[in-house]
Amino acid sequence: WLFGRLLSGCTLNVGGRRFPFTADLVTHLPLSRLSRLNRCASESELLEFCDDYDRETNELFFDRHSDAFSFIVAYAQHGALRLAPSMCELSFLNELLYWGLDSAELQTCCQRRLDQRMNDCYVHFFPECRFSDYGLYYQKDQYGGRDFGNKCQGWMETIRRTFEEPTSSLAAQVLATLSVIFVIISMVVLCTSTLPDWQSLGAAQQGDRRSHRSVPSGLVESICIGWFTAECTLRFLVSYDKCEFVRRPLNVIDILAIAPYYISVLVSFLTGEDSELQRAGVMLRVLRMMRIFWLIKLARHFLGLQTLGLTLRRCYREMLTLLVFVGVAMAIFSAWAQLLEYGLDPVPEASDWASIPSACWWVIISMTTVGYGDMYPVTVAGRVLGGVCVVSGIVLLALPITFIYHSFVQCYHELKFQSSRDHAGLCSE
Amino acid sequence: WLFGRLLSGCTLNVGGRRFPFTADLVTHLPLSRLSRLNRCASESELLEFCDDYDRETNELFFDRHSDAFSFIVAYAQHGALRLAPSMCELSFLNELLYWGLDSAELQTCCQRRLDQRMNDCYVHFFPECRFSDYGLYYQKDQYGGRDFGNKCQGWMETIRRTFEEPTSSLAAQVLATLSVIFVIISMVVLCTSTLPDWQSLGAAQQGDRRSHRSVPSGLVESICIGWFTAECTLRFLVSYDKCEFVRRPLNVIDILAIAPYYISVLVSFLTGEDSELQRAGVMLRVLRMMRIFWLIKLARHFLGLQTLGLTLRRCYREMLTLLVFVGVAMAIFSAWAQLLEYGLDPVPEASDWASIPSACWWVIISMTTVGYGDMYPVTVAGRVLGGVCVVSGIVLLALPITFIYHSFVQCYHELKFQSSRDHAGLCSE
Amino acid sequence: WLFGRLLSGCTLNVGGRRFPFTADLVTHLPLSRLSRLNRCASESELLEFCDDYDRETNELFFDRHSDAFSFIVAYAQHGALRLAPSMCELSFLNELLYWGLDSAELQTCCQRRLDQRMNDCYVHFFPECRFSDYGLYYQKDQYGGRDFGNKCQGWMETIRRTFEEPTSSLAAQVLATLSVIFVIISMVVLCTSTLPDWQSLGAAQQGDRRSHRSVPSGLVESICIGWFTAECTLRFLVSYDKCEFVRRPLNVIDILAIAPYYISVLVSFLTGEDSELQRAGVMLRVLRMMRIFWLIKLARHFLGLQTLGLTLRRCYREMLTLLVFVGVAMAIFSAWAQLLEYGLDPVPEASDWASIPSACWWVIISMTTVGYGDMYPVTVAGRVLGGVCVVSGIVLLALPITFIYHSFVQCYHELKFQSSRDHAGLCSE
Amino acid sequence: WLFGRLLSGCTLNVGGRRFPFTADLVTHLPLSRLSRLNRCASESELLEFCDDYDRETNELFFDRHSDAFSFIVAYAQHGALRLAPSMCELSFLNELLYWGLDSAELQTCCQRRLDQRMNDCYVHFFPECRFSDYGLYYQKDQYGGRDFGNKCQGWMETIRRTFEEPTSSLAAQVLATLSVIFVIISMVVLCTSTLPDWQSLGAAQQGDRRSHRSVPSGLVESICIGWFTAECTLRFLVSYDKCEFVRRPLNVIDILAIAPYYISVLVSFLTGEDSELQRAGVMLRVLRMMRIFWLIKLARHFLGLQTLGLTLRRCYREMLTLLVFVGVAMAIFSAWAQLLEYGLDPVPEASDWASIPSACWWVIISMTTVGYGDMYPVTVAGRVLGGVCVVSGIVLLALPITFIYHSFVQCYHELKFQSSRDHAGLCSE
Repeated sequence: WLFGRLLSGCTLNVGGRRFPFTADLVTHLPLSRLSRLNRCASESELLEFCDDYDRETNELFFDRHSDAFSFIVAYAQHGALRLAPSMCELSFLNELLYWGLDSAELQTCCQRRLDQRMNDCYVHFFPECRFSDYGLYYQKDQYGGRDFGNKCQGWMETIRRTFEEPTSSLAAQVLATLSVIFVIISMVVLCTSTLPDWQSLGAAQQGDRRSHRSVPSGLVESICIGWFTAECTLRFLVSYDKCEFVRRPLNVIDILAIAPYYISVLVSFLTGEDSELQRAGVMLRVLRMMRIFWLIKLARHFLGLQTLGLTLRRCYREMLTLLVFVGVAMAIFSAWAQLLEYGLDPVPEASDWASIPSACWWVIISMTTVGYGDMYPVTVAGRVLGGVCVVSGIVLLALPITFIYHSFVQCYHELKFQSSRDHAGLCSE
Repeated sequence: WLFGRLLSGCTLNVGGRRFPFTADLVTHLPLSRLSRLNRCASESELLEFCDDYDRETNELFFDRHSDAFSFIVAYAQHGALRLAPSMCELSFLNELLYWGLDSAELQTCCQRRLDQRMNDCYVHFFPECRFSDYGLYYQKDQYGGRDFGNKCQGWMETIRRTFEEPTSSLAAQVLATLSVIFVIISMVVLCTSTLPDWQSLGAAQQGDRRSHRSVPSGLVESICIGWFTAECTLRFLVSYDKCEFVRRPLNVIDILAIAPYYISVLVSFLTGEDSELQRAGVMLRVLRMMRIFWLIKLARHFLGLQTLGLTLRRCYREMLTLLVFVGVAMAIFSAWAQLLEYGLDPVPEASDWASIPSACWWVIISMTTVGYGDMYPVTVAGRVLGGVCVVSGIVLLALPITFIYHSFVQCYHELKFQSSRDHAGLCSE
Repeated sequence: WLFGRLLSGCTLNVGGRRFPFTADLVTHLPLSRLSRLNRCASESELLEFCDDYDRETNELFFDRHSDAFSFIVAYAQHGALRLAPSMCELSFLNELLYWGLDSAELQTCCQRRLDQRMNDCYVHFFPECRFSDYGLYYQKDQYGGRDFGNKCQGWMETIRRTFEEPTSSLAAQVLATLSVIFVIISMVVLCTSTLPDWQSLGAAQQGDRRSHRSVPSGLVESICIGWFTAECTLRFLVSYDKCEFVRRPLNVIDILAIAPYYISVLVSFLTGEDSELQRAGVMLRVLRMMRIFWLIKLARHFLGLQTLGLTLRRCYREMLTLLVFVGVAMAIFSAWAQLLEYGLDPVPEASDWASIPSACWWVIISMTTVGYGDMYPVTVAGRVLGGVCVVSGIVLLALPITFIYHSFVQCYHELKFQSSRDHAGLCSE
Repeated sequence: WLFGRLLSGCTLNVGGRRFPFTADLVTHLPLSRLSRLNRCASESELLEFCDDYDRETNELFFDRHSDAFSFIVAYAQHGALRLAPSMCELSFLNELLYWGLDSAELQTCCQRRLDQRMNDCYVHFFPECRFSDYGLYYQKDQYGGRDFGNKCQGWMETIRRTFEEPTSSLAAQVLATLSVIFVIISMVVLCTSTLPDWQSLGAAQQGDRRSHRSVPSGLVESICIGWFTAECTLRFLVSYDKCEFVRRPLNVIDILAIAPYYISVLVSFLTGEDSELQRAGVMLRVLRMMRIFWLIKLARHFLGLQTLGLTLRRCYREMLTLLVFVGVAMAIFSAWAQLLEYGLDPVPEASDWASIPSACWWVIISMTTVGYGDMYPVTVAGRVLGGVCVVSGIVLLALPITFIYHSFVQCYHELKFQSSRDHAGLCSE
């Protein structure tokens, strides 16, 4: 304590700049490193808290950023702690923590800027968090260091990499290309199978209109299903963590897209080819259409779709806002439109406007400025309401979308950056 | 004065940096702290204006920011006062005020930047202003410190918090959830009551088409109304300032949404169930539809809707601009369209285009790019005008909306920040 | 010369920082102030180029910004002149000019930033340029200082201010309000005069359908015209520069809006009330509709409309780009659409698509996403082209509009700033 | 080595600021300039690595930026290398390279900022890269220095400049104007030739409807074709590199636009004027319509169109994303819409919805909010899907377009800057 008091007349040399060490400073910043200095009983204890001490000039040396310290001194004098504009926000935070302050003591506006900055940088400083955040790829960093003792595991690792990392080897690229081709083929078959000409051709070949599938399209379908099943099974077998595997969104979609085929085959088998069930089988047609979600498998290979997925995950709050806006506006405008166009009419004729739910269709088509023209107001009051509805629709829809844009741009840059780093890492191996 | 003149050869030490104290400096900055220094008669008087004075080195010490002072010195020399880029704008303003200058002496562009910055930060530095600005929540900071002497007031305070702050306790959360559920139920009943099937069902039950309400929906309606009335009354009773309570927008909406039910019940009671009035009662239907505004009660619980409300309040000027743009464009285009499509036709047939107000409908539907297709120009001149109208509509509508976007983003961040702070405050209690 | 050589070993003290004065520096910056220093023959000559010279320490003093000079020294050493980030760009330019360099020696990217900055600030530093730039208001600064010797001119000045500056006095505000009311009344009369009910009413009063004007609307029209004529004449009489007055856009619109009435009255007078000419008088109806442009007179009183006007003036280049984009896209898409929908059809039936100009109507309505539904492609090739046309329309139209937005925001802030300054100036008078 | 060790106690003077030269510094930055200093055996060797050495004060002088070095010292101490905020990012990179570090050692966020900055500036620092990047103009800088020995080449150079640089001389401007006029004339002829009145006129003149070209339009067409052929041939003859010339996009368009005329003339000649082929000649009509691409020749003279071209080249990745988004959304929504509107209907009647490809037309027209109204869902499920489709269409389309906007703005500024520099260069010659 005695020694500490002697110190109070000394100077602090922070990064080459000298600051007088006044009792004032210690009083105003009670919890910081300086107050501990003051309590030091000996020189050796002192050196735990500073980098050097020059007894002659009575000077304490700190190898820290001088600008940051001058802002902290200003804080002690004027009571407002602000970010030093000439420093990186994160460096400044480091300095604050070193001197025993934390970010809560910053002015509100500076604190907000620091938060913003930390959000921006988070994914780059802790990339493993990002990986687990959207789980599109496997965390190779985490498991890469494992010791695969036997040959079998080495093989599994090779297969895993071939399937999960399209750029890891030539075989992986061929596999990825094949996968994309199979998706596209199955989509083309699905689309063409609904064309009238194709259907009549298939019907002619089979002699009746019993089935929507002609023979060749049925064959192609089976091959695609076979491929996807094999791919999905293999990827499941070689994955490290089976439990985590089935929870990944892209894998869930895989299963949802493959399962219906087997269910419909099973139903056909159980009920017989010509049973009543299959003819009018609404459920079977719906199941069959689930196959369209195979398209989302393309997300494995296109940066744009991955970005979209990540954006949707991050913007669920903004999506909800969009939904609430549209919902509230739809309810209010449709109720009033129904009243003005139908309810106030002594002899209501416009049967399109008879109920609020059917007026909702008009509202959503007008707010989004689509305007098919199947419904439109004809009364003067209804038209005024229509104008207000359209203009407020433009404003309302655009507001939350602005947020989604910003998030999309951010996600895109992140994924692009990571992808280019992965590539670079691959090349340097 | 003599002493002051001696001073003129001394140096100013501002935040560790030395500046020569020339008469020149004083001449150019006549109203500032320095000129007062110059007029000091003794050293004790001098110390009122500076932090320290070293007689030996003839040096005046100021514990202020050296960068800011160097900019002020530059002002004295070159006549242009600019913001120091390496400082927070608000800190710099503090320094200016200390030295006896004010922001009006800044260069115009710097002044604009300072204004902008102050606008950005205003709500954070003076949060109480913000609260009263949009009045969605009660000013707890202002009244929180009050001394509630008796138990009764303590109870009222608890009830008030339960109703006004959805996150304050478990009971408050249950209440908020119940409130949202009641709003949704009443909306669903309102919508379904207009469905033809439902109406015929209700009519079948009652034997005639006299009433639009079937028995169960009438019951649900009564329960909802009862709940809302009770909630509104309680909140009114426990509010601090009754006068301020009824002026808050959300409460006004509450009253507007509840009152019509009682009015219609009253009218029914006065005129009798089967009276002529009620059958064709246009006013009653309108009053009934007022209930749709209950939806706006959701704003209490959704950040997005609060943001929208705050945005609308702040952007009333931009809204007006949007209105003026649309109005002027509508008048000009509809007048010319009517002339080209109807007025110049020797034998006018297109009765849709007969008057300017009906042409307005076409203009608003075209400018917003809805395009129902119920009206469209057929003459060549009319089509050219139509193209111009559509393109200028896209430009005109988007211009003021850009401002509304920016305001929305700003409002969203503010409310989010405050909400997270409220939560944090709650947790730390 | 000899003296100069002695100098070469001295130091430069710029704003308190010392720089060695090497021959190297002079060699690399041959045209600057320093080389002139070097050529000085005596100390007195030397003091013309620097602020002070200390013979003892052989030091030259300059009261300039030390950071800027250190960047200039860096330029001499490394050959790249960059803006000092810690300074205002305009201050830095001042320093450059002082030392005898100009902005052309800056690195290209810094030069661009400086240009941008100067563009941003231009209007604020030279407000008189801005005034003459869009000419909505009279340049009071320029003429304000004139000496109006006699009372008559003082009166004229008062009237001029009353008419031109709506906020200058109570009388001016009343005048402005009256003017807005007259515009709105005349617009309402113009609109209602086309309503069928009103027309039949007017016709009933006059016994035939000869005139579109009923008696009361004719009266209101005359009063409005009288007011506008009087206002315009007075403003012309009290204006300083008659020639400049008639070239201002808002005055041109005034004249264009008033003149048609007198022309039509003249024509009626010359040809007689019942002449053949007036009955089918196409030109008269067109002239009458010119009156709609009175609405633009509102621009005098609404900041939003002034902003729009200024934006249109500044963005004529972007408007042209928009026009060229729309024109080129319209030509290409309409030609191909006509070919695909009509030209390739062996038995062409779709008469809507018969010619390229009529296909243009479809293209503009599709590109702007209006989609009335009066024309749409039916062939597969036409629909593919339609999809491409719509998507490229969205992209093409939005690109130049982005620029117009930015310009609008800029103009809005400028006018708002000026308007608030005018108000402030008025209050402080 | 011995000498190096003595050095370890000395100080480094970087740009006037002193730093202690500790062994610590060398240990942490092993590959840098400092470690080489440490290995120097003599003073002369030392001076290769620093600017000066003062034996007395044991001080090493470096004429470098002191701020940058202080950041490098901070790196050695705290292990995080960050950009100095008070310096231009590119200057800082220069400093890093001087001291023997490279940009890979920067923190990730700073590295990203540096990359961004370098991308922004790249085109300005290496203008020749930009030229070859989009190849609209010839690289005059590259070839400008060539020695054209004989007069013939001088002439060719003059002609080349006249054609390729519209602003280079009066003749060039006349040529450019003529070229634009010819393009516009040929477009007008092409458009009017499809007008019914014009066709009947032409048919009347020729006595039958054999040809779509009337005599005068045929003549104008031949003149235009002649002009374009001559221009294209001349420009080919005087170009330096014939191979590069035919690969430039604008020249490819030229050839594609001219060739069809000669092919059709050739076909007419071979098959005879009245042959069956020409009458129904679908291919000939398609070839004829290729002429519309002459419009793209205007890109030579309009900055806006050049910007568009450059944007499309740079944004091919974003365009692809847009395509993938639209494609995936179209497939999913059209499949489900077909199912809901047609597939689930026991007695399908809506023949518009019979196949997925025809439902695609509805999806693209709805997602872009055009909404012609030729197809719209009528079932409740279909309408819900329609609402989702429209809202997601608005979001999906806008996301990649945001990127295209930013790129367009960037391209526009670059081309404008270059164009103004070219003009300035021309004037100063």
